[in-house]
Amino acid sequence: MDESASAPPPARRGGNGRAGRAAYDLDAVLDVAVRAFNERGYDATSMGALAERLGTSKSAIYYHVSGKAELLRLALERALGNLERLLEQPALADAAALDRLESVIRGAVHVLVEELPFVTLLLRLRGNTEVEREALARRREFDHAVAKLVEEAMADGALRSDVDARTATRLLFGMVNSLVEWYRPGGGLTADQVADAVVVMAFEGLRR
Amino acid sequence: MDESASAPPPARRGGNGRAGRAAYDLDAVLDVAVRAFNERGYDATSMGALAERLGTSKSAIYYHVSGKAELLRLALERALGNLERLLEQPALADAAALDRLESVIRGAVHVLVEELPFVTLLLRLRGNTEVEREALARRREFDHAVAKLVEEAMADGALRSDVDARTATRLLFGMVNSLVEWYRPGGGLTADQVADAVVVMAFEGLRR
Repeated sequence: MDESASAPPPARRGGNGRAGRAAYDLDAVLDVAVRAFNERGYDATSMGALAERLGTSKSAIYYHVSGKAELLRLALERALGNLERLLEQPALADAAALDRLESVIRGAVHVLVEELPFVTLLLRLRGNTEVEREALARRREFDHAVAKLVEEAMADGALRSDVDARTATRLLFGMVNSLVEWYRPGGGLTADQVADAVVVMAFEGLRR
Repeated sequence: MDESASAPPPARRGGNGRAGRAAYDLDAVLDVAVRAFNERGYDATSMGALAERLGTSKSAIYYHVSGKAELLRLALERALGNLERLLEQPALADAAALDRLESVIRGAVHVLVEELPFVTLLLRLRGNTEVEREALARRREFDHAVAKLVEEAMADGALRSDVDARTATRLLFGMVNSLVEWYRPGGGLTADQVADAVVVMAFEGLRR
């Protein structure tokens, strides 16, 4: 996902050969694109506007991607890929459903905190384009996988079953996904503290 | 709020006197406006587009309101007024903080279910106009009042205090507000069932 993190610093365009040589690496382009999509909407953001925000040319962006749709796809892949990998933790393969569920919830809080603009983009999608519809389908599959964990934990007798599993799953995601509305990086609350609060509230309840 | 519910059926424009006589009552205009604002965005919705959706003329809308900003203000008033009244229930004036908190949460679920498009509009506001900023300020005040109830219930010893009150309040609203994303009227789940699920999860927790 983060292959360019160890890449050399971005080269300024200049007399160093290749035309359209990128002034910024792909991650920097993605960061700016996602911020623009979140602020102005995907439809309202042109490649020209992205180039302006980056202080570069459109061709410098086309050096990395085929167009706006690919930027969106890469950005959503970052959010979805990180969430989907939470379901495939080998260490948890034999754990009880409740433990797997708790691990996925804690992991999801971390993904939201660490990739906040990317998950914000995912959660605000309306499904106007093919790329958006594919991402929404993957998000639904992820939600279904978590709902299945809730059902399993209820069947195990680990979770109370007088709350509808589907509703419980939606309320769980309501808590976790609300982070995109209120969590501010550097605001003094770590991902672990948020994850603890979500897990305590969801499983133990707030009543003393 | 719903003063026109008992008003006579909307009169068609015709030769019955006053020019620009409304083809629809104010509530019908508001319903259509809120749907348009939610679907296309407030900024992108013109009075002409609203008139077209209503199958009427712009002057028929101006019969009721001074313009688009007043439609937005009235729509947000419906959501906010209903939420704010939850804090002023005389029967609860002397109740313990936890009972008041539970009553506000149950009431908020009902407001969301019964005024879903209006609360959806409120929750998606970005604050681009004066009307929006005023509504956001009122929403923040409501959130603060609920946070104070959480703090009081913790001080009473009724709620555990190892979860930060502010975070707990945000997660509570995360659950309640998530309804605008997934609740579908007529989907077989009543407001009371949703309220029960929220209250059980928040206060008792899902663990058996």
